[in-house]
Amino acid sequence: MSHSILFFDDYSEGAHPNILEALHRTNLQQTRGYGHDAFTHEAAELIRAKMNQREASIHFVSTGTQANMISIASMLRPYESVIAVEEGHIAVHETGAIEATGHKVHTVPSLHGKIRPEAIEALLLEHNDEHMVRPRLVYISQATELGTIYQKKELEAIYQTCRNNNLYLFIDGARMGSAMTSKEADLDLEEIAKHCDFFYIGGTKNGALLGEALVIIHPDLKKNFRYHMKQRGALMAKTRIISIGFIELFKGDLYFENARHANAMAEKLATGIQTQGYSLAHPAVTNQIFPILPKQLILQLEKKYGFYRWPTIVAPEDTMIRLVTSWSTREDMVDAFLDDISSFNKW
Amino acid sequence: MSHSILFFDDYSEGAHPNILEALHRTNLQQTRGYGHDAFTHEAAELIRAKMNQREASIHFVSTGTQANMISIASMLRPYESVIAVEEGHIAVHETGAIEATGHKVHTVPSLHGKIRPEAIEALLLEHNDEHMVRPRLVYISQATELGTIYQKKELEAIYQTCRNNNLYLFIDGARMGSAMTSKEADLDLEEIAKHCDFFYIGGTKNGALLGEALVIIHPDLKKNFRYHMKQRGALMAKTRIISIGFIELFKGDLYFENARHANAMAEKLATGIQTQGYSLAHPAVTNQIFPILPKQLILQLEKKYGFYRWPTIVAPEDTMIRLVTSWSTREDMVDAFLDDISSFNKW
Amino acid sequence: MSHSILFFDDYSEGAHPNILEALHRTNLQQTRGYGHDAFTHEAAELIRAKMNQREASIHFVSTGTQANMISIASMLRPYESVIAVEEGHIAVHETGAIEATGHKVHTVPSLHGKIRPEAIEALLLEHNDEHMVRPRLVYISQATELGTIYQKKELEAIYQTCRNNNLYLFIDGARMGSAMTSKEADLDLEEIAKHCDFFYIGGTKNGALLGEALVIIHPDLKKNFRYHMKQRGALMAKTRIISIGFIELFKGDLYFENARHANAMAEKLATGIQTQGYSLAHPAVTNQIFPILPKQLILQLEKKYGFYRWPTIVAPEDTMIRLVTSWSTREDMVDAFLDDISSFNKW
Amino acid sequence: MSHSILFFDDYSEGAHPNILEALHRTNLQQTRGYGHDAFTHEAAELIRAKMNQREASIHFVSTGTQANMISIASMLRPYESVIAVEEGHIAVHETGAIEATGHKVHTVPSLHGKIRPEAIEALLLEHNDEHMVRPRLVYISQATELGTIYQKKELEAIYQTCRNNNLYLFIDGARMGSAMTSKEADLDLEEIAKHCDFFYIGGTKNGALLGEALVIIHPDLKKNFRYHMKQRGALMAKTRIISIGFIELFKGDLYFENARHANAMAEKLATGIQTQGYSLAHPAVTNQIFPILPKQLILQLEKKYGFYRWPTIVAPEDTMIRLVTSWSTREDMVDAFLDDISSFNKW
Repeated sequence: MSHSILFFDDYSEGAHPNILEALHRTNLQQTRGYGHDAFTHEAAELIRAKMNQREASIHFVSTGTQANMISIASMLRPYESVIAVEEGHIAVHETGAIEATGHKVHTVPSLHGKIRPEAIEALLLEHNDEHMVRPRLVYISQATELGTIYQKKELEAIYQTCRNNNLYLFIDGARMGSAMTSKEADLDLEEIAKHCDFFYIGGTKNGALLGEALVIIHPDLKKNFRYHMKQRGALMAKTRIISIGFIELFKGDLYFENARHANAMAEKLATGIQTQGYSLAHPAVTNQIFPILPKQLILQLEKKYGFYRWPTIVAPEDTMIRLVTSWSTREDMVDAFLDDISSFNKW
Repeated sequence: MSHSILFFDDYSEGAHPNILEALHRTNLQQTRGYGHDAFTHEAAELIRAKMNQREASIHFVSTGTQANMISIASMLRPYESVIAVEEGHIAVHETGAIEATGHKVHTVPSLHGKIRPEAIEALLLEHNDEHMVRPRLVYISQATELGTIYQKKELEAIYQTCRNNNLYLFIDGARMGSAMTSKEADLDLEEIAKHCDFFYIGGTKNGALLGEALVIIHPDLKKNFRYHMKQRGALMAKTRIISIGFIELFKGDLYFENARHANAMAEKLATGIQTQGYSLAHPAVTNQIFPILPKQLILQLEKKYGFYRWPTIVAPEDTMIRLVTSWSTREDMVDAFLDDISSFNKW
Repeated sequence: MSHSILFFDDYSEGAHPNILEALHRTNLQQTRGYGHDAFTHEAAELIRAKMNQREASIHFVSTGTQANMISIASMLRPYESVIAVEEGHIAVHETGAIEATGHKVHTVPSLHGKIRPEAIEALLLEHNDEHMVRPRLVYISQATELGTIYQKKELEAIYQTCRNNNLYLFIDGARMGSAMTSKEADLDLEEIAKHCDFFYIGGTKNGALLGEALVIIHPDLKKNFRYHMKQRGALMAKTRIISIGFIELFKGDLYFENARHANAMAEKLATGIQTQGYSLAHPAVTNQIFPILPKQLILQLEKKYGFYRWPTIVAPEDTMIRLVTSWSTREDMVDAFLDDISSFNKW
Repeated sequence: MSHSILFFDDYSEGAHPNILEALHRTNLQQTRGYGHDAFTHEAAELIRAKMNQREASIHFVSTGTQANMISIASMLRPYESVIAVEEGHIAVHETGAIEATGHKVHTVPSLHGKIRPEAIEALLLEHNDEHMVRPRLVYISQATELGTIYQKKELEAIYQTCRNNNLYLFIDGARMGSAMTSKEADLDLEEIAKHCDFFYIGGTKNGALLGEALVIIHPDLKKNFRYHMKQRGALMAKTRIISIGFIELFKGDLYFENARHANAMAEKLATGIQTQGYSLAHPAVTNQIFPILPKQLILQLEKKYGFYRWPTIVAPEDTMIRLVTSWSTREDMVDAFLDDISSFNKW
């Protein structure tokens, strides 16, 4: 099953060329291991500056599942639990990584992938004694699993609900770049950092070779975090290969440029598909879109393009698919895809 | 504390230039994620061929702690335990990663870092009912934490003990390259694979940008292994950045060249130090050596070189240090170090 | 808040007098500890005979949460999960005990507390690769949390679905006695044992001083089970104090007499309440009933009787409560309760 | 292998008759479940009064392994560890229960089962960064596994070491009664409570039907403890069956009478054995003694008496055995045992 063009995900290529160049340039410089090196300090400083949080702790890990499971487990006592939406990555797509650290993941229904404060409060009402776990953390994703984003007013309401109820708020930012550069975005890095206790900035899906930058805002959560990382296998001997990437992404505007490009390609896809008469299952505001297409068209497209049919089946004949663009999606790839839809329609 | 020359470890630099070159060359090739790509298949095939084990399962993870904890946890039932020597990496230097998966690590005394079959058998004798854990796995390192290696006769005896007692044998090969190219080595990859159930080939410490190659030999241990990886955060979206490195290391002789160079540099250091009248705490046969030096000399050397004083204190005045060489240690670094010892002695 | 009569639960008293008498009679007999005693062997034999399963393994533990968590954890590999209904005891009322052993609990909607085969199959369809956990076990309760029971046809269909899909079936029998003696029951102990892989027979809620009898049917699940028990703190030095109780319950018909009495008292309550014009939220077939009553009546009743308002709020004015009867509920307690409803209605 | 007289352990019989009587007397009294009952409150009050600690939290669990694992796990963050002596119950005889909650158990050599402050300090020195676990808790037993006891001066020194190093001190009091009534005891309940952060008072081994009373002294450790209990399966529906026992044991002097009797019987055994020319491996000050006897004598005694040969083999011909007495050991049992040794010697 070889495809000429892939819209499966945003990690189909290596890394932005600037990052490979930086790895090459610094290659023989000797440093201490495990993040005790000048590159890692510099990357952390750049991120702290960008979000105007001088006291934040920054750590680098290699995968999103690590980012989620280590952060969440570090915030909870054994009997405490985390609340997510039904589509939440930790609830579905991490093979029980959170449960493997001993904690329950509650799921609540979402609105296009977004959690609502009332859903949190309803769940809290039901959990009031020691025969049940004690919810202690709300997990959200920005952008969500369905490509939507939280706006400032929404995030404020959620964070307020958390603070009213002694809950931490954690934001999975695997696609934070795409969210921050969305045409509907009103939350930049500084605002995100002000409205949660812990979050991460995804590199893997936005042009880094690998790695996610964990950002700890709440002072109580910073202590001994490296112990958690080491215990879960996430403290890398050559942490520098992640941090050198983050220096390149954050020393200028590259992180945002990459994301803006991905968004632009997704928007072009979305508009083109809608123009041809097909609808999208969720608002198209980041680099993931969810068209609903006739089965025949899907079969046709699958001959040339790689993409996922997404679990939810909307109708017996029309099916939802997911298209993902990235920093490296070329405009001609998008044009080809739209042309093939157009041909099918004329056919 | 900035040093001009580091002998701290074998991961002070980036990667062998061939690997960076390969990453550059393949960068924009689109592939599926999570190891379902041609690079990962090729790397696995190369390793299988090199060890003449066509049925082995090969998986790539990013750190040694991941390699150990995921492999070991995958082999055990909840009440089963693993046996290691007192200096074993899993017993001391992984922040309880094995225990965090629920399993006890027994420790037995070692001979220069090596386990003895009698120590295994003595421990088994003491564990005979359900009030105690059930030992099920022996963990050894090749090379050991003290830079020594197992020879074929020794490994055979250990593996025989394991098979006689229904124990799996797992080999931590973080420094497998250095072990296989030691002047005293009589175990190549093919022999290693024949004498254990599961092992890994370390990349991080032998010139790879990152990554360890897990090799599952025993058929019972192969099933659903990717589930374990995902659950522990080790399934990388861009597995290719590890596997491209292993292709470079194993398509020709690079893995062994890197290790031979590290060993040669260590041997030169060891010989030079001994020539100047100092002794080594352990046999010097791989890329880690453990000289015992006067405190004054150590203080002098620490001004220019980076290395660890090693825990064990041998005498109030003489102290053990650890020197580690790598694929990228230059001969002039070694010469400088030996010259400075020589100057001190004349002084 | 002291009540003269309690309908909170079925463990408000000590134990059936025969059991106390047996403890007294055997008190000074010396035995080996941890279940290696003649009482425990006899109790196991009696249960095996009653269900006509000579090869079943029987173990005794002290609480229902132990019974569930140890059994379930013993059946699963780290990445495997268990399926329950939304109201399932393990899903809600055990403070994340299953997750604390590392496993996800899936929840599916129920029909009056009962699972449907289609719900199992739908969930399996969505879990098909290593990015998600692997469902391996279906957990049901007989009687259910809502007081209903599975009939033979239903259990057969569920067990068939399990076998078709390589799933174990585990039955939580905390209220197995009440279920087996229900007026609608067509599943006795022998039939239960034929239609699942592992189940337990509850003592605590049916007149025992303490304890649940675990019954392992599937041969693969028997091995080393005592190790699991010991590791989780469930292997009691004086296991005999549980097994002596089970001897009394199963040497004659006491286990069933106790349950029949509890059911009769519940039925009398249910009939009386319905006669007075109130409805029940769920079919009343065992010793738990769920009347929906006006708030004023509830407030009145709460002055004299102990019972729970049950989570689900049906209407702003009418509220569901739970009434539980037991082997020791006296008929005059039931009469008093019904009289007080009657007085309220006339009022 | 049926023996007429058992010295295997101190839980070979049921319970002190007063306790059975109290269970009988209170049997039909209705109470709330899970420890929210007047019996449990009374038992806790009696224990608080006895140790003059009005603010202590008291909880009741059914086994010693539960007592240890739940208490210890509740005190630790995931990367923290516990220190015990090599013979420590948690280190050897609980099937890895502590590790199953995710924590490493360090072992240090003991002096007749007792830990020394220097051993704690040496271990702390070696654990100083995030590549190793962080010791946070010292676990000791009073009496120890070898029947010895800590005296006040020793306990003070250990507790001081703990406080100097930010370590909690936990005392396993499975045989606390025997320790407090030893002829060498200078630590009563009040003194014990002043010199640790958390401990438990064993019932199972001192005449209770079942159960251990957990005592939390340190204010930071009290919060939400019942959640830990429930999650680990230790919150009993009928907690009253434990607490009614503790009322009997602590409303007067019964707890101490039971223990004094056990100690007297052990002392008589010890003196008799020594008089006949055999030595003891450890000081005989509580209800466990460890004679070293010739193999032929052991074989002879095993025909009539039940006891354990203890792991450590002292000499090829002489072997250590363990004899345990209890509240219910009769003087004629001891006499018979000594007579049989005497006969053997004359023979």
